[in-house]
Amino acid sequence: MYFSVFLFVTELVATAAYAMSGVIAAKKRNLDLFGTVFTGVAAAVGGGVVRDLLLGNTPPVMFTKPVYALTAIPVSLIGFFIEKRSRLFEDEGVVTQILNAADTFGLGIFAVTGTHMAAFSAHGDNLFLALFVGMTTAVGGGILRDLLTGQIPLVLRKRIYAVAALVGAFLYYAFRIWLKMPLVLSELIVIAVVTLIRYLAIRYRWNLPAFEEKS
Amino acid sequence: MYFSVFLFVTELVATAAYAMSGVIAAKKRNLDLFGTVFTGVAAAVGGGVVRDLLLGNTPPVMFTKPVYALTAIPVSLIGFFIEKRSRLFEDEGVVTQILNAADTFGLGIFAVTGTHMAAFSAHGDNLFLALFVGMTTAVGGGILRDLLTGQIPLVLRKRIYAVAALVGAFLYYAFRIWLKMPLVLSELIVIAVVTLIRYLAIRYRWNLPAFEEKS
Amino acid sequence: MYFSVFLFVTELVATAAYAMSGVIAAKKRNLDLFGTVFTGVAAAVGGGVVRDLLLGNTPPVMFTKPVYALTAIPVSLIGFFIEKRSRLFEDEGVVTQILNAADTFGLGIFAVTGTHMAAFSAHGDNLFLALFVGMTTAVGGGILRDLLTGQIPLVLRKRIYAVAALVGAFLYYAFRIWLKMPLVLSELIVIAVVTLIRYLAIRYRWNLPAFEEKS
Repeated sequence: MYFSVFLFVTELVATAAYAMSGVIAAKKRNLDLFGTVFTGVAAAVGGGVVRDLLLGNTPPVMFTKPVYALTAIPVSLIGFFIEKRSRLFEDEGVVTQILNAADTFGLGIFAVTGTHMAAFSAHGDNLFLALFVGMTTAVGGGILRDLLTGQIPLVLRKRIYAVAALVGAFLYYAFRIWLKMPLVLSELIVIAVVTLIRYLAIRYRWNLPAFEEKS
Repeated sequence: MYFSVFLFVTELVATAAYAMSGVIAAKKRNLDLFGTVFTGVAAAVGGGVVRDLLLGNTPPVMFTKPVYALTAIPVSLIGFFIEKRSRLFEDEGVVTQILNAADTFGLGIFAVTGTHMAAFSAHGDNLFLALFVGMTTAVGGGILRDLLTGQIPLVLRKRIYAVAALVGAFLYYAFRIWLKMPLVLSELIVIAVVTLIRYLAIRYRWNLPAFEEKS
Repeated sequence: MYFSVFLFVTELVATAAYAMSGVIAAKKRNLDLFGTVFTGVAAAVGGGVVRDLLLGNTPPVMFTKPVYALTAIPVSLIGFFIEKRSRLFEDEGVVTQILNAADTFGLGIFAVTGTHMAAFSAHGDNLFLALFVGMTTAVGGGILRDLLTGQIPLVLRKRIYAVAALVGAFLYYAFRIWLKMPLVLSELIVIAVVTLIRYLAIRYRWNLPAFEEKS
């Protein structure tokens, strides 16, 4: 009970962090208030919409449980007015570090929720589906955000991002379906592992190999 | 009866106007005849396809009622050959004003049809779904058109566009679901209100606030 | 039996060729290993995913028959490491010609599989649906690949590409639904015709008319 409240709160924090990543992307292209909120919502819940379309869950969870969008909308609105007057979230200060931490939590959490929904659907024995859907839930919102703002998706270019989500999806599937471990324990381990991978990737500037090496 | 014929005709006019917006976008990127027709069709019926995918209506209405696509295709073809030889639709003349008027009608009409389909689906009590789907039906085609032609979607950047559709979606839902008003009266009021908002926005160059102010 | 093995093998060759087109697009934008594989898979199976979403087949075939994705993934991985060290697939040598041939086979094959799935679905009498889905299966992966790598889709700009797929889709529908011809014969004729159209288009630098003529 305490754990599930903890996880729900963390999920909302992650939703807010993803929405703020949309606000920051919107600022780079000078979008207006509507465009900023739309991009924030797309970043926050877009991965889940793609997941639901692939699984045939219609209407998507963003509509049946509006709490996520109703978190992303005011966060994007407030973020817009703060960012319009300042550079609070762009500077490499403590606020950015909090956002990065929330974003990283989010990657693990969304990998868990995506994998969970596929693994306990009618197609739960399809490991490939579960991994793809888990990863897509975690990175799909960022891809939509980047396409809407005319960028080549960051996740295709830099850092160990999607791979961390994929590792998380695999671990969650293994824990829950093969090892029959309980929900909360599995979630916490996966979030910890994904966060650790991301922390190390940022700390040591890890990248996957690319056609030309980058810093 | 006379009204529903009127509305159907207006819907086809709006479809044609959206298709022409695709042709104009295609010209800027020097697309070929196929690309122009594809972009025209995407602009005209793309919002409806997104609506249908979100609601789980498959195959989408563009296939079960091909009249809309079969309007958009010849309009795009004719538009291509006119635009190839002239600048008829780009100049700020009377043709452009007719197109803008039809486009604005279209925004209201598509907000109505999208909201209607969600409000009278099995999920009709979900206001958030109805508003989002109504707005998406109205602006989704334009977003697809802009993504296909490598532009940051106009609707995210300028003018009171999506917000007018959102107001229309809300009014239509309120009129029909809460106030039990008849279909045609509701439609006409919504189209009038959306058109008025758009007219004022264009006339007085209204924009939502953006990160940096624009003209 | 021998024919269906032949067709299945050809389909895998086409999948590999489409994946390689994703690798080459990824190289132009210096994507990393994950981005390259993701783009390769999107190019190879993305058209099929769009087809399945339009037809309401969830989860998409890429998950229920993972053989296609499991072909595209190692091909993209191997392609990445070859391309990282060489220009093997970019130069106008014999390798490029083999790729182009496989790509052209793929266009015909995917037009057939897409049209087949629509024509023998519950909506099989809908010619417009079958043609659109057949064409989309053939060109949708390339459109996704180009959007992910920040390009205006090639298919909208140059060469007789989508139109060849459309001709193939129409012929397949006519052969199978109207003329009741057998599967394998229909497939072979369609693939031959599409390949011929594409060969002639490349050989004689055919293009559809565009707003400004190109070479």
